[in-house]
Amino acid sequence: MKRSQLSFGDYIKNHQTNFNKFLMSSLKKKTDEQDEIIKAARYSLSAGGKRLRPLLAIATAEGLGKGFDDIKTFAVSLEMIHTYSLIHDDLPAMDNDVLRRGKPTCHVVFGEKVAFYAGLYLLESAFMTLIQNASNKNQREAALAIADAAGVNGMIGGQMADMSSTGSKPNTNAMRFIHTRKTGRLIAVSVHAVALWFGIDKNVHKILLKIGDKIGLAFQIVDDILDVEQTSRVLGKTTGKDSQQGKMTYPALFGIKESRVRVKRLYDEVERLLGTIEGFYFNRLFELSGYIINRIN
Amino acid sequence: MKRSQLSFGDYIKNHQTNFNKFLMSSLKKKTDEQDEIIKAARYSLSAGGKRLRPLLAIATAEGLGKGFDDIKTFAVSLEMIHTYSLIHDDLPAMDNDVLRRGKPTCHVVFGEKVAFYAGLYLLESAFMTLIQNASNKNQREAALAIADAAGVNGMIGGQMADMSSTGSKPNTNAMRFIHTRKTGRLIAVSVHAVALWFGIDKNVHKILLKIGDKIGLAFQIVDDILDVEQTSRVLGKTTGKDSQQGKMTYPALFGIKESRVRVKRLYDEVERLLGTIEGFYFNRLFELSGYIINRIN
Repeated sequence: MKRSQLSFGDYIKNHQTNFNKFLMSSLKKKTDEQDEIIKAARYSLSAGGKRLRPLLAIATAEGLGKGFDDIKTFAVSLEMIHTYSLIHDDLPAMDNDVLRRGKPTCHVVFGEKVAFYAGLYLLESAFMTLIQNASNKNQREAALAIADAAGVNGMIGGQMADMSSTGSKPNTNAMRFIHTRKTGRLIAVSVHAVALWFGIDKNVHKILLKIGDKIGLAFQIVDDILDVEQTSRVLGKTTGKDSQQGKMTYPALFGIKESRVRVKRLYDEVERLLGTIEGFYFNRLFELSGYIINRIN
Repeated sequence: MKRSQLSFGDYIKNHQTNFNKFLMSSLKKKTDEQDEIIKAARYSLSAGGKRLRPLLAIATAEGLGKGFDDIKTFAVSLEMIHTYSLIHDDLPAMDNDVLRRGKPTCHVVFGEKVAFYAGLYLLESAFMTLIQNASNKNQREAALAIADAAGVNGMIGGQMADMSSTGSKPNTNAMRFIHTRKTGRLIAVSVHAVALWFGIDKNVHKILLKIGDKIGLAFQIVDDILDVEQTSRVLGKTTGKDSQQGKMTYPALFGIKESRVRVKRLYDEVERLLGTIEGFYFNRLFELSGYIINRIN
């Protein structure tokens, strides 16, 4: 594959712009009655997310010799599921958060019930996108992997374990369980399910699965570190909540320094694993891993 | 089609038994960590529902010359979506109901957060069932119709309109809007999307769509009448709530007597429309319409 001439910053910006355009166009046109729900969903979708999951999917697709158009519906479903989970996690009955990406959370602006339904609307839109576009066996397998990552084996299971373990004595196994599921699985499918979607060789898929897991875990550790180190202004959400609430995090268990060492180790592993995939070049995916690890918000 | 020898009561009981067996087997085996969520979902799924939507789908399939095995995954997705909506509607942040089908609601037994996730788990399981089994274009079209009936054009939109109109002056248009969406669409797809699933002639589908709409509306009017007339003991849920909360219902707008007249009119319309479909015989579907209309809980 020819190495793109764009700087990484421009590469990301271009894809974010294209993706955002496509994302907003794939939402239903609102009618009067649906007004509030769709307005609320649009509000949260356009509240300045970095689109990490779609970017991972696009970069992986490019590594496999495909382009934006081949993976854009897959990418949209990821972002919808991610945003649905944020809206629901922030609800008063859940984490009761009032700030997200520097803006008031969905339920603060639209009320609890509308936010509740806006989340469900996004989840259902994600599934409708998948049903509509997964037209062959490979794509259905990829769609199932995404759905599974959002379910009890993934996000829901992790969220539940996170809540029930909050305040209890931290231990590595429980934390690992939570991390892998709460955010890890959805990030991992953003990488490896792309190979399923295109029906790529099972061995390549297996390596991308490992890579996705490592990027997912690194993402979560960095998230935990930022919660300790950053101000709310930079992060755009309430910080310091993890330790206040007694959540199981890497910094709580190993300290900041050791947490950083582990992130670096995961990054090196991603580089090594990418190098073992023959015939494909994942330079953008590797740059993206670096971006995820070095981000400050 | 040969007329089955079973009495209607035995016919229903047989299908309920077969369906329940298949439904429970299609839930994930629980692991320790997912325990609570899956236990809560199983609790609500097995809390004595009549399986009206699955029965409608099965009876329609039989009318089209197909059998239980051809439509069982479709039917499972309907019941999962229906049960998810009940669990979520009953939540403290929503209708805050404590009794359902004669048993304490999911959140009363398992707590608000577990019930919240159990509902999401069922919604996602429904979509996973659809993705896994909708393997051709016709089946994908049917799956999309189900998803649409659960979304802002259906259940979510109706629920939202119901809440925002509660307490305001009743009017026929608003009420019709709410009824059609809140329960009508999901009941209607239980009939007409079966024709999509099997790729049946578009004209037959069109008539089944009308029939499904009428059964859905009749179901909801009967529901409203029962809320006024029945005791909580018979109905298995808190009664009289509609009028207390100032909900828009047929009895509130037209009185009980006129509401019954309208139900009868819908029933006659179903009979007439079924008679216009050439080459297929929907005797069980017609009996089922009668059962839905004459039910006492």
